Amino acid sequence: MTSIHRDDIYRYCDLVKMNFSSAAWLHADHSALKEYLMERFQIINNYPEPQPKQLEKLIAKKLGISPYAVMVTNGATEAIHLIARLFHHSASIIPQPTYSEYARACRLNKHIVSNETSDEMQTMPKDRVYWICNPNTPSGNVLMKGFVDYVVRRSPRYNFVVDQSLEAYTKEELLVPQEVQSLQNLLILHSIGKTYGALGLRLGYITGHPNVIQLLRNLQRPWSLSALAIEAGKFLIEHGEPAITDLDAHLAETHRFRSALRKIKDLRVFETKTNYMLCEISKGTSTELKNYLVHEYGMLIRDCQNFDGLSNRLFRVTTQLPDENDSLVAAIKQYISGINKE
Amino acid sequence: MTSIHRDDIYRYCDLVKMNFSSAAWLHADHSALKEYLMERFQIINNYPEPQPKQLEKLIAKKLGISPYAVMVTNGATEAIHLIARLFHHSASIIPQPTYSEYARACRLNKHIVSNETSDEMQTMPKDRVYWICNPNTPSGNVLMKGFVDYVVRRSPRYNFVVDQSLEAYTKEELLVPQEVQSLQNLLILHSIGKTYGALGLRLGYITGHPNVIQLLRNLQRPWSLSALAIEAGKFLIEHGEPAITDLDAHLAETHRFRSALRKIKDLRVFETKTNYMLCEISKGTSTELKNYLVHEYGMLIRDCQNFDGLSNRLFRVTTQLPDENDSLVAAIKQYISGINKE
Repeated sequence: MTSIHRDDIYRYCDLVKMNFSSAAWLHADHSALKEYLMERFQIINNYPEPQPKQLEKLIAKKLGISPYAVMVTNGATEAIHLIARLFHHSASIIPQPTYSEYARACRLNKHIVSNETSDEMQTMPKDRVYWICNPNTPSGNVLMKGFVDYVVRRSPRYNFVVDQSLEAYTKEELLVPQEVQSLQNLLILHSIGKTYGALGLRLGYITGHPNVIQLLRNLQRPWSLSALAIEAGKFLIEHGEPAITDLDAHLAETHRFRSALRKIKDLRVFETKTNYMLCEISKGTSTELKNYLVHEYGMLIRDCQNFDGLSNRLFRVTTQLPDENDSLVAAIKQYISGINKE
Repeated sequence: MTSIHRDDIYRYCDLVKMNFSSAAWLHADHSALKEYLMERFQIINNYPEPQPKQLEKLIAKKLGISPYAVMVTNGATEAIHLIARLFHHSASIIPQPTYSEYARACRLNKHIVSNETSDEMQTMPKDRVYWICNPNTPSGNVLMKGFVDYVVRRSPRYNFVVDQSLEAYTKEELLVPQEVQSLQNLLILHSIGKTYGALGLRLGYITGHPNVIQLLRNLQRPWSLSALAIEAGKFLIEHGEPAITDLDAHLAETHRFRSALRKIKDLRVFETKTNYMLCEISKGTSTELKNYLVHEYGMLIRDCQNFDGLSNRLFRVTTQLPDENDSLVAAIKQYISGINKE
């Protein structure tokens, strides 16, 4: 594992005071979870369940589907790698730009990877896996539920992987596991870590047809999750509140933040249907801007130049607390005015 | 992942009062670790390091080797699967009985698997991977360090995986990473969870030549370990005490326990160089005995009939607290006298 993805706050130790680089909310209050885990801390002395069936049952109950249609994974990333492995040697269509781990997992498993141009549609093998990040990162686009659902149902020969990891951060309608559980050509990815603002736990799950879930289970190694992560998952599914308790207010703040960014000259801000947005700076580069912000202000943004097909002028920011958002707007202005003076 | 290994305490919920089924010590005191993690609990709000480099550096420093010669894994089990994947399509020699995950990981990765009979030595391909569990489970055997070292050095064409997960539980001399770090055909597995009595954390590591470690890193997915597991690992490596603080006393208790078991008629107890031992009952079956002990006395033993080549009369027990050991001896006597009365 050599390439670096997403939030790279660990690189900057104590330098980062405000983190705009993760797509998820970083200010969730986990005091109740902490208390719950502390009371049960002795669970670390024993092996956890090899496969976290109890947690899977709780998720299934909440979603109104069969426990056999749910598979808990070590973050959405384990899910991506298991699915890429299940479909090894397939042709995978991965519209870019998107989360880079799909392509990496596919290449490790000898897929032919394409970005879905019409030429390739003609020349690619007829058995394909489509990877759809919805909401997509880094763009903040969301495909219509009706469109996704229609395409999946109309194309039984293709397999679809719809990554809904960031489902808690949009008001757009997304796929509902209960409504699509009979489809054998669809796997949906979910993230407990992102939904509840606990990215460090590495907790995700797949929903899909029990036949396909069973094939994935055969590939999973035992004890992929620690006892603490499993126990935390049980608490969050049963008693946890999503990280964003008031999504309307959060998206309103996103709108306010975006409007303020759009007023900056030499900065273009793209549309978004969620709480993060892609920006393009016409002066300097995103890497320079990132370094400036982290060293001058302790602010971390997501440099997007390492996304396939994106230039070194693109970066992503995620809505944080209003004061933090205002500070970032001011700091970016400062950077651009500095360049203009040179 | 369908087969069930090792400690299956999770199946019995609150029924188990004494657990003899794990090879590791289950009574380690983790109050200092708990306090340390609680102070840092907010780390769960962010992504952990994609690859836990800080923890790898601490381990390397402790062992006196290069950080590039250490790779932290999600338990020894992730290590086994990554290695099996690196050597996909190889011929693997796995002397039985031993930990079943070697064969499972090898088969998932299309190895030709053999148990090393002389016939197979003639017919197997010349490029081979030898899997050596040392101390071995379920037998408690330990191969001489000099022998292992000699064989590895004399056979540069073969790859050796030496699983020293249970190294903290024997007085026998084992391989020392610092002494063998230049060998490109050797990977050693270690377990932080077993050494420190924290199996639930899922923390292991591989030591080996940096060239081979790099090949394994290329196969590992990011964020395989949760933020809490990584942080716990740092604490244990720097400040933790091994689960067994007085190994001489622990092995003396093992000797006392073993002598008491050997006095039971109709029970054979095999040799051991560590804290667990294989037993063979000539009345009833190990599965019946296991069910009897768990339901009558809340005691869990390790039924060994699902190890390759072992019969349904074999089981493994691990030394626990002296009172617990005495209770198990009495309960097994009770079971056998019950059968003899029938």
